[in-house]
Amino acid sequence: MKDAMRAEPTASDGSPKAPRRPTIGVFDSGFGGLTVLKALLELVPDADYVYFGDTARLPYGSKSVETVGRYAVEAAHYLESHGAQMLVIACNTATALALDRITSAAHVPVVGVIEPGAEAAALSTKNQKIVVIGTDATVSSHAYRTALEARGLSAREKACPLLVPLVEEGWVEHAVTEQVAHIYLTEAFADGFRNADTMVLGCTHYPLLKSLLRRVTPDHVNIVDSAETTARAVASHLGQLVPAAGQEERRALPRMKFFATDSVEKFRRLGERFLGHPIVDVQHVDLKE
Amino acid sequence: MKDAMRAEPTASDGSPKAPRRPTIGVFDSGFGGLTVLKALLELVPDADYVYFGDTARLPYGSKSVETVGRYAVEAAHYLESHGAQMLVIACNTATALALDRITSAAHVPVVGVIEPGAEAAALSTKNQKIVVIGTDATVSSHAYRTALEARGLSAREKACPLLVPLVEEGWVEHAVTEQVAHIYLTEAFADGFRNADTMVLGCTHYPLLKSLLRRVTPDHVNIVDSAETTARAVASHLGQLVPAAGQEERRALPRMKFFATDSVEKFRRLGERFLGHPIVDVQHVDLKE
Repeated sequence: MKDAMRAEPTASDGSPKAPRRPTIGVFDSGFGGLTVLKALLELVPDADYVYFGDTARLPYGSKSVETVGRYAVEAAHYLESHGAQMLVIACNTATALALDRITSAAHVPVVGVIEPGAEAAALSTKNQKIVVIGTDATVSSHAYRTALEARGLSAREKACPLLVPLVEEGWVEHAVTEQVAHIYLTEAFADGFRNADTMVLGCTHYPLLKSLLRRVTPDHVNIVDSAETTARAVASHLGQLVPAAGQEERRALPRMKFFATDSVEKFRRLGERFLGHPIVDVQHVDLKE
Repeated sequence: MKDAMRAEPTASDGSPKAPRRPTIGVFDSGFGGLTVLKALLELVPDADYVYFGDTARLPYGSKSVETVGRYAVEAAHYLESHGAQMLVIACNTATALALDRITSAAHVPVVGVIEPGAEAAALSTKNQKIVVIGTDATVSSHAYRTALEARGLSAREKACPLLVPLVEEGWVEHAVTEQVAHIYLTEAFADGFRNADTMVLGCTHYPLLKSLLRRVTPDHVNIVDSAETTARAVASHLGQLVPAAGQEERRALPRMKFFATDSVEKFRRLGERFLGHPIVDVQHVDLKE
């Protein structure tokens, strides 16, 4: 798989030019992956990005493993055909249900969101007790529990299905959202997990609620933001594969190109809240459903 | 189209037997249509029902007119192939985006949810000012506004995107839901619509919130439940087409058969909350996505 990263690019005048900034493909069923892209822009600014939001076919959570796998592979190939030299599966459901299949089908390295989050939780915890919050689909897959137990940790996975719609309604600092989060977290930090010392944000929508969640989470708890940890995993991966870019290239701003399967206007409007940057270059993609 | 309703059925021994109880097909992208089925069971008990919930492909709200039309026609044909002699499109989005196409493709009469709701609002209002609450997709389609304006009424359509997830979380009598509803309705009953005297529940999930919504809606407002009004439209349609059943048949309980494109277990669990009856006979249907 590393071979694809070694391909020697050429400059626009045709002369050999190595190494140039990599193009990273980021994939999500919708908007949540934009929080991962936001973290990538901060941590890996010396790259260009292509983002695929499969907004017409979301949510993946209610779909079968077979269907999610097929959709995700289709998106992965789309991003490769638009120059992606590495793929970030910035969607917990797609990672949980289809990471192996995407990795097999792709011709470039693939990074998911779950392993980096589990690894960060393992580094953070002192008492081996982890709370993971996520959507129904992610919790039902038990992908986090599996990844955490493989590291000798105990995990309580708590589904918080109202948090995504609250974020999409824009109520990220709303009293209602705080009340809902308080209810969910009280249920999560109970019984054997009352003293859990680490909480993983196992949904790429949740970084938008980080300061609100900080207020309603017990003080002793360290919050692991899986968007940030995924960006760190990408940076470390690139560090191994791509030599440091030249000084001139460092100064260049990342180019970002977005593809969405549903309304471009809606993607721009909702997406900017997640990314924290203007979204300019969005193209509609028509995939057979 | 009426011809299909006139087809003479035969009893199991092959002898002619007329008129027998009709089989009504009910279609929704998910669970909401079960509130329409619930109203039908009360109003038209002398019938058998086949229900199709396209749970693997929901929500229809984010999909194109073309895609929703294709899905809905596929579901309509599926229900016809399972004996439906009439189709109820118990989904506001499918009605808004695809009723004409379904009606053209079907071989039996088709009833949607929007016209009956608009008609009931027209009969209820004294001052011609109607508030309609619904999902983003239904509100964006302006199908209710069009239907109400055609009757000389003014409409304010208000999207309430959090109400569906709150219902699906089971928080139908929860303080959080009351607070959310209060916020939405305060925004809806404002300015020129402060004195609107009728509110249409333009989403088939909302009948589960009827008593909560009653508490937070101004006292002078009449609430039109489009599940009930649709059931009444079906009853009136059947009254014209099917002669009253014999006494013996009246005593028979409706037979209900359910088809779901996603998990049967989830359909049973969530569906019973909407239907208020046990859901026994559910079959999984695998449709190409």
